Amino acid sequence: MPTFNPVDPDFERHIRASFARQKLLESLGARLTAVSPGAVEIELPFRADLTQQHGFVHAGILTSIVDTACGYAALTLMPAGFEVLTVEFKVNFVSPATGARFIGRGRVTKPGRTLTVCAGDVFATSGGAEQLVATMLATMMGLPERASPPE
Amino acid sequence: MPTFNPVDPDFERHIRASFARQKLLESLGARLTAVSPGAVEIELPFRADLTQQHGFVHAGILTSIVDTACGYAALTLMPAGFEVLTVEFKVNFVSPATGARFIGRGRVTKPGRTLTVCAGDVFATSGGAEQLVATMLATMMGLPERASPPE
Amino acid sequence: MPTFNPVDPDFERHIRASFARQKLLESLGARLTAVSPGAVEIELPFRADLTQQHGFVHAGILTSIVDTACGYAALTLMPAGFEVLTVEFKVNFVSPATGARFIGRGRVTKPGRTLTVCAGDVFATSGGAEQLVATMLATMMGLPERASPPE
Amino acid sequence: MPTFNPVDPDFERHIRASFARQKLLESLGARLTAVSPGAVEIELPFRADLTQQHGFVHAGILTSIVDTACGYAALTLMPAGFEVLTVEFKVNFVSPATGARFIGRGRVTKPGRTLTVCAGDVFATSGGAEQLVATMLATMMGLPERASPPE
Repeated sequence: MPTFNPVDPDFERHIRASFARQKLLESLGARLTAVSPGAVEIELPFRADLTQQHGFVHAGILTSIVDTACGYAALTLMPAGFEVLTVEFKVNFVSPATGARFIGRGRVTKPGRTLTVCAGDVFATSGGAEQLVATMLATMMGLPERASPPE
Repeated sequence: MPTFNPVDPDFERHIRASFARQKLLESLGARLTAVSPGAVEIELPFRADLTQQHGFVHAGILTSIVDTACGYAALTLMPAGFEVLTVEFKVNFVSPATGARFIGRGRVTKPGRTLTVCAGDVFATSGGAEQLVATMLATMMGLPERASPPE
Repeated sequence: MPTFNPVDPDFERHIRASFARQKLLESLGARLTAVSPGAVEIELPFRADLTQQHGFVHAGILTSIVDTACGYAALTLMPAGFEVLTVEFKVNFVSPATGARFIGRGRVTKPGRTLTVCAGDVFATSGGAEQLVATMLATMMGLPERASPPE
Repeated sequence: MPTFNPVDPDFERHIRASFARQKLLESLGARLTAVSPGAVEIELPFRADLTQQHGFVHAGILTSIVDTACGYAALTLMPAGFEVLTVEFKVNFVSPATGARFIGRGRVTKPGRTLTVCAGDVFATSGGAEQLVATMLATMMGLPERASPPE
């Protein structure tokens, strides 16, 4: 994995402040468990009200945590005063999402002035070994805060 | 759009029963608003607790409804006694998700014995015109109910 | 499908000139068969030297024509003096690529100042009915000609 | 990266034999440069007749080599007598494809009885450092040779 030098020395504080404004992640009970240059980790405890018809955590919820981890991984490398939007992502679901906790990890594959490409994974764990349940490839866009989103 | 002949005459009842077991969709307040051969529609009213840091509905929630619509669209064409799993999807987010309601529509592009390819969209509306906010291309897998999920 | 008003009245001439500079498409024997606002069609006759191990046209060649069709579909709606780059795409392959000719069609789903989202398909035909062989969802980026590509 | 135990001790010979039947890769001048359990590498020297309108190697050609590398990476872990089909892939293009040679590397993320998920990259090199130009996430399907492709 490449090593990145963030241009905003205060990146962690900005990301934690932004995360705190994400009402969905609070509703889900997700926590921001690690922030480093180009990499972010988010943890979600299992809850029955987040499951699909087979009792596994819904694909959209796994996606929510790894999308957020990838977006913030991109943001760690952007200038102060930037925000990040998800342009698009692709996710493969490789194992049933069973476990006590789900860990979404996002990392920057290629940072850019306009677009940043990230990869992410979701692992399930019940305390012991982690099992891969989903893997993401995503495109994120940085833009100055308060600017209108691009059309 | 192609016309499909479902092999299970009772497909709508099976899909409504499966939807009723989706705890996440109940938690979100989503409703199954239309089921026809190869096409399913799900509606989600706006709720502030589903938003990201800019106050728009989170990408993962939009994904939840259109993934579910695509999965059930695939299931409308499968034999009785089948269930559907999401193999993978890709979603582009094209406008900020603002509006009173979000409508996820999934439709079958190519049905298959093992894999079904679906396309889907999410539209935002406040009662008047619909605006496209996200678009999906997805791969779904059918398998007999109670069978173990494929490794 | 939405109707688009191109800002460059001369879009077709610019696209035909750009296509003529695509050495790969000339090498493959591909032709630009239709250009309209937001939509482009490219045709490729079957050639045995483009096949994979089963004798079907290789996924990467099908991708080449539908990627090019999507990119130019995006370019039809951009200002004069712009070029287009592929940010990313996803392609599903739904039938074996057999037939005398392959038709790649790209269309704009959502135009934008920076990014344009396109959908595309590849159909196989031997003179009669067309059969869908691949379907694409893609993100294209416009930028002024001669500008350095964005990092 | 996980370690894999191939079930077919002769996997390398089978993959080299299959590669030799890929007429496209021969037409492009691509070579199979490494085969190991769960990982395959393919190299393509630059050729002007493979370029797009800016003189870079066309996205579809980069895709051809990394798709093939991912497909064969999946096949290394399948039983003898199996073949592999590309279900779908997503590719991000992150740098202009300039360089003397392009190296496509595919690796298995999650093997499976029916579907195998792979990740791949394309690097450009002119003899010195490698630069990432494209990154792929793909779904491959194994099936017994001579069987009809699944609908």
